[in-house]
Amino acid sequence: MDFKLMQDLVAPNQAKIVMLLLDGLGGLPREIGGKTELETARTPNFDALAAQAALGLADPVAPGITPGSGPGHLGMFGYDPLQYEIGRGVLEALGIDFELGPNDVAARGNFCTVDAAGNLTDRRAGRIPTAINAQLVQLLRTIKIDGVEIFVETVKEHRFVFVMRGEGLGDALSETDPQKIGVPALPVRALDPGSDKAVRLINQFIQAAREKLATQHPANMVLLRGFAKHPAIPSYQQVFGLNAAAIAVYPMYRGLAKLLGMKMAKVEGETIADEFTTLEKNWGAYDFFYLHVKKTDSAGEDGDFERKVHVIEEVDAQLPRLLALKPDVIIVTGDHSTPAVLKSHSWHPVPVLLAASFVRPDNIAEYGERACARGSLGRFPAKDLMPLALANAQRLTKFGA
Amino acid sequence: MDFKLMQDLVAPNQAKIVMLLLDGLGGLPREIGGKTELETARTPNFDALAAQAALGLADPVAPGITPGSGPGHLGMFGYDPLQYEIGRGVLEALGIDFELGPNDVAARGNFCTVDAAGNLTDRRAGRIPTAINAQLVQLLRTIKIDGVEIFVETVKEHRFVFVMRGEGLGDALSETDPQKIGVPALPVRALDPGSDKAVRLINQFIQAAREKLATQHPANMVLLRGFAKHPAIPSYQQVFGLNAAAIAVYPMYRGLAKLLGMKMAKVEGETIADEFTTLEKNWGAYDFFYLHVKKTDSAGEDGDFERKVHVIEEVDAQLPRLLALKPDVIIVTGDHSTPAVLKSHSWHPVPVLLAASFVRPDNIAEYGERACARGSLGRFPAKDLMPLALANAQRLTKFGA
Repeated sequence: MDFKLMQDLVAPNQAKIVMLLLDGLGGLPREIGGKTELETARTPNFDALAAQAALGLADPVAPGITPGSGPGHLGMFGYDPLQYEIGRGVLEALGIDFELGPNDVAARGNFCTVDAAGNLTDRRAGRIPTAINAQLVQLLRTIKIDGVEIFVETVKEHRFVFVMRGEGLGDALSETDPQKIGVPALPVRALDPGSDKAVRLINQFIQAAREKLATQHPANMVLLRGFAKHPAIPSYQQVFGLNAAAIAVYPMYRGLAKLLGMKMAKVEGETIADEFTTLEKNWGAYDFFYLHVKKTDSAGEDGDFERKVHVIEEVDAQLPRLLALKPDVIIVTGDHSTPAVLKSHSWHPVPVLLAASFVRPDNIAEYGERACARGSLGRFPAKDLMPLALANAQRLTKFGA
Repeated sequence: MDFKLMQDLVAPNQAKIVMLLLDGLGGLPREIGGKTELETARTPNFDALAAQAALGLADPVAPGITPGSGPGHLGMFGYDPLQYEIGRGVLEALGIDFELGPNDVAARGNFCTVDAAGNLTDRRAGRIPTAINAQLVQLLRTIKIDGVEIFVETVKEHRFVFVMRGEGLGDALSETDPQKIGVPALPVRALDPGSDKAVRLINQFIQAAREKLATQHPANMVLLRGFAKHPAIPSYQQVFGLNAAAIAVYPMYRGLAKLLGMKMAKVEGETIADEFTTLEKNWGAYDFFYLHVKKTDSAGEDGDFERKVHVIEEVDAQLPRLLALKPDVIIVTGDHSTPAVLKSHSWHPVPVLLAASFVRPDNIAEYGERACARGSLGRFPAKDLMPLALANAQRLTKFGA
């Protein structure tokens, strides 16, 4: 599905689409013959919605591929993650509302600890308090490099965002984190000839940072990784003709949504219920809503099957609030699987529920991985989901005569 | 599935394939928990055939895309509709047996009514009788344009086909129908530089037509749209090694089949039974038969659920005549969905039934959308259907050693 076709067929109307995305939703049974987290959860509201919906299983990137958060989301959002690659530095910068420009190279930064010989002793500087981080960032901001602008922004604890702005900076750069202790931080190296200038200037910055931080133990050095420039990626408005809003508590997901031109709907508080309140408050202002629930993934990463079940039940309990708004199209899905038994993202396809007035219902009154495997959407590339959502919103005209 | 692969593997034999295509077959329930048109219809013959068949759901173009008749048919015929685009003018010309050449630009023409100021008052000239149309076409044929040949052919009521034949004519041309009344017809404009010559000459023709028709109220002007040249599209013989026949009553579908090199099997009469008689009479002469039933789509477009059910039952009643011929492969499908509740083509995938001696049967004794959702063909791009049919006809050799 190329975007030219979408752009040719899109015909905006008043219909509203909600994508309720439970991060890492897909799971696995704990024992032979057992149920997954989603199948275990008591979800009367999801099940009732499933009965009137079309179900399926989506591969966010491709069969067998375990998606990172970026590619997983891009796939569900309708973009081919193999075509559009987004660096982690860019996501981190967007997540703290940093306005990246086309001449910016962004990276994720860590304060870290090195010993007298310059060898790493703690890659996270003991997770210093955010307030200390803010003071150190002030120090780093005093560093000047000829010909470029430097931005350093606190994220949380030991994490910060580094941005270098200037002409002719490439982003094919190796990272400085050796991923182990007892060795020095690595110098940045260029992975293509177009990044030589960036290498020289960033290594200057790192040397200057080493000097500025020398007396600031435990945060006496920096690590930089995920160097990336703002990718050329068409917006939701351009591709799908949608005025889209993101409801997300975690910075990276807001950053990703912002990259696609989604507006940020401000969440007062941090709970799932708070996110649904944000949905209600913003209902009149947008025609696509991405509502992100993080805790399913966190529980999966922690290997906590029961907690993941509980988070799913918590979302199910909120569903009537969404239904009361009478969206034209509802999608319930994940961005990848995070089975508690694996304690990590996985390659398993994600369950998809698509509900709308003119969907052809599968008459399967259950929302779960095996139920979705029997659904009429079949097993499909995630990027096909948005065209289906738009069709069900009657926002696509006929192709050809 | 690219055609190079097909061409490499095709090994013609005596096996016969029938594609029974019910236009707009796919449907939707009328009420929550209800059945679709196909599920509602009493179809003992389809159901018995389904029990020995493989079932599935096909997307004629792509998930979420509502196909026009041209792309829908192309997909079911095994061609990627996004790769092969066929202009409406070409279909219309082929449908009246006009032999289009490589230097021809064809368009759909309407006689229309304009007032003294030149503004449209009726885009269809009151649907003038076909006999009047034929007289006016004689008038238009007297128009001469230097350097090109002009053909004008009656279709029906207010509709005609316009063809300009000459060197260097492009077909990237805007249409003259403004799609509303109270404004003048639009001039043709070039949408690429290669179409400048065609624009100049076609606008000359339109001006001449305006003069010739001035006193012929209500048909005192013409509208032209769907400009297109004959697309370069490989034939059924070239791609699949099939000597194919089309059994279709409506011009556009005959035109489409002709474009793929199918022969026209003449239908005496217009009923579904007449089409099956044609199948019987031509059984010895071809090895692929496309039998097109139009009325399922017409009933769907009219929003007449019951009539669509009835047409499906009428086709089911004829099925034993097809079975008696003992085809090696039988496909029963549609070219798109036309749910009566939507009164239009839709994006929903179409049911597919594939019956053959060596098909792996799904043991599902029912032909309907939800039955097909459970079938072993899964949900698949329509263009994969013909390779499956050829395989079941044992007309494809092994790939690789």
